Amino acid sequence: MNQDRVNATYLVETPYSLQVAAEVIAGEQSTGTFTAVPGETDALKMKFGARIEKIAELGTAGKPTLPGYNIPAGHDGLYRSGLVTLSFPLHNFGPSIPNLMSSIAGNLFELQQLSGLRLVDLELPIAFADRYPGPKFGIEGTRKLTNVYDRPILGTIVKPSIGLAPEQLQKMIIEVSSAGLDFIKDDELNANPPYAPLEMKVKAVMEAVEKAADATGKRIMYAFNITGDIEEMKRNHELVVKAGGNCVMVSIMSVGLAGLAHLNEYSEVPIHGHRNQWGMMTRCPNLGFEFAAYQKLCRLAGADHLHVNGLNSKFYESNESVVRSIQACISPMYGGYASMPVVSSGQWAGTAIDTYAATKSVDVMHLAGGGILAHPDGAAAGFESMKLGWEAAVNGIQLNEYAKKHPSLKRAIEKYGKG
Amino acid sequence: MNQDRVNATYLVETPYSLQVAAEVIAGEQSTGTFTAVPGETDALKMKFGARIEKIAELGTAGKPTLPGYNIPAGHDGLYRSGLVTLSFPLHNFGPSIPNLMSSIAGNLFELQQLSGLRLVDLELPIAFADRYPGPKFGIEGTRKLTNVYDRPILGTIVKPSIGLAPEQLQKMIIEVSSAGLDFIKDDELNANPPYAPLEMKVKAVMEAVEKAADATGKRIMYAFNITGDIEEMKRNHELVVKAGGNCVMVSIMSVGLAGLAHLNEYSEVPIHGHRNQWGMMTRCPNLGFEFAAYQKLCRLAGADHLHVNGLNSKFYESNESVVRSIQACISPMYGGYASMPVVSSGQWAGTAIDTYAATKSVDVMHLAGGGILAHPDGAAAGFESMKLGWEAAVNGIQLNEYAKKHPSLKRAIEKYGKG
Repeated sequence: MNQDRVNATYLVETPYSLQVAAEVIAGEQSTGTFTAVPGETDALKMKFGARIEKIAELGTAGKPTLPGYNIPAGHDGLYRSGLVTLSFPLHNFGPSIPNLMSSIAGNLFELQQLSGLRLVDLELPIAFADRYPGPKFGIEGTRKLTNVYDRPILGTIVKPSIGLAPEQLQKMIIEVSSAGLDFIKDDELNANPPYAPLEMKVKAVMEAVEKAADATGKRIMYAFNITGDIEEMKRNHELVVKAGGNCVMVSIMSVGLAGLAHLNEYSEVPIHGHRNQWGMMTRCPNLGFEFAAYQKLCRLAGADHLHVNGLNSKFYESNESVVRSIQACISPMYGGYASMPVVSSGQWAGTAIDTYAATKSVDVMHLAGGGILAHPDGAAAGFESMKLGWEAAVNGIQLNEYAKKHPSLKRAIEKYGKG
Repeated sequence: MNQDRVNATYLVETPYSLQVAAEVIAGEQSTGTFTAVPGETDALKMKFGARIEKIAELGTAGKPTLPGYNIPAGHDGLYRSGLVTLSFPLHNFGPSIPNLMSSIAGNLFELQQLSGLRLVDLELPIAFADRYPGPKFGIEGTRKLTNVYDRPILGTIVKPSIGLAPEQLQKMIIEVSSAGLDFIKDDELNANPPYAPLEMKVKAVMEAVEKAADATGKRIMYAFNITGDIEEMKRNHELVVKAGGNCVMVSIMSVGLAGLAHLNEYSEVPIHGHRNQWGMMTRCPNLGFEFAAYQKLCRLAGADHLHVNGLNSKFYESNESVVRSIQACISPMYGGYASMPVVSSGQWAGTAIDTYAATKSVDVMHLAGGGILAHPDGAAAGFESMKLGWEAAVNGIQLNEYAKKHPSLKRAIEKYGKG
């Protein structure tokens, strides 16, 4: 690709022709006013303007997705959809994620010539890699820290997500550590609340982690939710690291990509990136962002792990969309920037089958809350059933078949699934 | 209100009953897993659970807004809409904007029981005011710095938004300062680009600002776009302040609310808050946020000025929605936190009439790009026409009537409007 330009591909819906819509989008990114102004010369447009690289028509519909569009004169009643790729000169904003966003997103979603706009892909020149070093640990570093190879990192989430007393939390950590789990994370609802300040939690958790490690010989990775204001996040990170913690978690949309990149400047442990609030950016199919585009920015900004929802989850997202996100996360950027996709929500042993079938990769973190903790025979059986689910998946064995030899898997199927 | 709880009101659309939908939303914020887990006792739910405060039915539709919802057994084919107010215990997250967001937004937009969810209002306990001091300048401080009273602050935007050489920018500042304008801002596309580093721009701009001030006796307020990564923003702010600049601008969604609050911790001049990218959070009527809710967070985090789009703008937004935003911004929070709404996009003298009619307030910044700079008789006439538009509005005089005595207004009407 041209290293002097950023390519952005949009799913466009418009009552105009796609060509007109593409020109409007490109124009909004150069003069940005509703009437011609002095100084807007052709030379200036040539040097700084966005350029239409490609228009691929997808089809038409009789109804628009979004309100507030204009009807062109002589409109035939059809709304055209297509993929429009624009390129922006890098020197307009430089390799800066915040200023990139003002250009590739900016006011574009508000244009009257569009009845739908969604950013579906993004190609960023190498200059961004020079500015943003990306994940310090990624897949390899996380495997090293957890000593788990050749299968997904299997873990769980602190539940109930709020209100657990320190002693209860310790009990839970001991339980899941004894069960052999690789990983456990705070819930996104639980960061540094007044009823259980992070300082207190870190102390309690690390006591339990070390105690369990002494007993089992394996130290669980615990992702402390350090989401907070900018300086608070720094203090929280320091608290975790000083206590010997080995992972921090942030809600990316709460701290912003700028907040994530800032954390990545001083972080000493993997950053577990949670994407809660993402739904509002993506659930309307013709608005916002596709995760395949957004995850690139999260990786640039330093997310070592990145939530992607889960197949057959309790959420609205289609399996196709989840698979696209996982595949996007495991695609190399600049030959690296590896971030581990985190498959979560409504997960249990059975969802390993579909996840593997769709991605052919074990480089994921697979998290189950109820799917491990509420296993009829306890957390150890729950963990075992997850491992067995992945064994079956990778070896192409039917889950029900494999369950015949493995009671923990059989019991999981009875409780959570249909096999 | 109860100072121990946060109230959030959602526009809900659901194939279930509103009661069921409200319970699901509340439940997602307590246990957050798809199956009951040990430890989730009634006492815990009572202390930490979200509570349904109010359900107001709005009507039904035969079609859902968003995809990915579940159909309940025996569904009658109708999708119910209503306003649902939930309250969350403050102690779940404390007075932290980032963690508030994970609770009031979180995974809610992804729930399968909903075919639409939009946060329309937010009531925050006083504890947030203790943690976030809000705007340091607001309406009063901005009036003091610009010495403009009893009418809107009138200003413009650097255009063309990208590519202007320092000498051209200086020429423009001299021109608009000589024309008498109160305010000028960088375009959101223009922050610290490689072709015109902020350092160079600050130097050029301040030279021109001081030169014009010496000539006119009035010092224009210039909002430098300092949008960038967290530490870069701090350096940018210092650059501006050291050079004697009197305003900084940030793209709020680029730096995040956490980035804005961080800037507000050290800022010494008013913060001009630009809301580009906001469209993706709000254009789908049954998804995301209403600006009336979001602006409260922006004000808490310290935005002295806050963009709200404009009436009859070049964008998709309805005038009703713009008016709601302006009214929300000028409503006091905690008896203060005054932020000046910035009316911008497609503005000229004529839009003053509708803006004032709808809001009965002159506590706005009214920005026109082409509407001032492209006035047939030049920027001074453009500025004069804007003042005249507001005079007519406040005094209840028809614009065409007032234009009979005022050629600059007459010429503006001829160019931009129908009167």
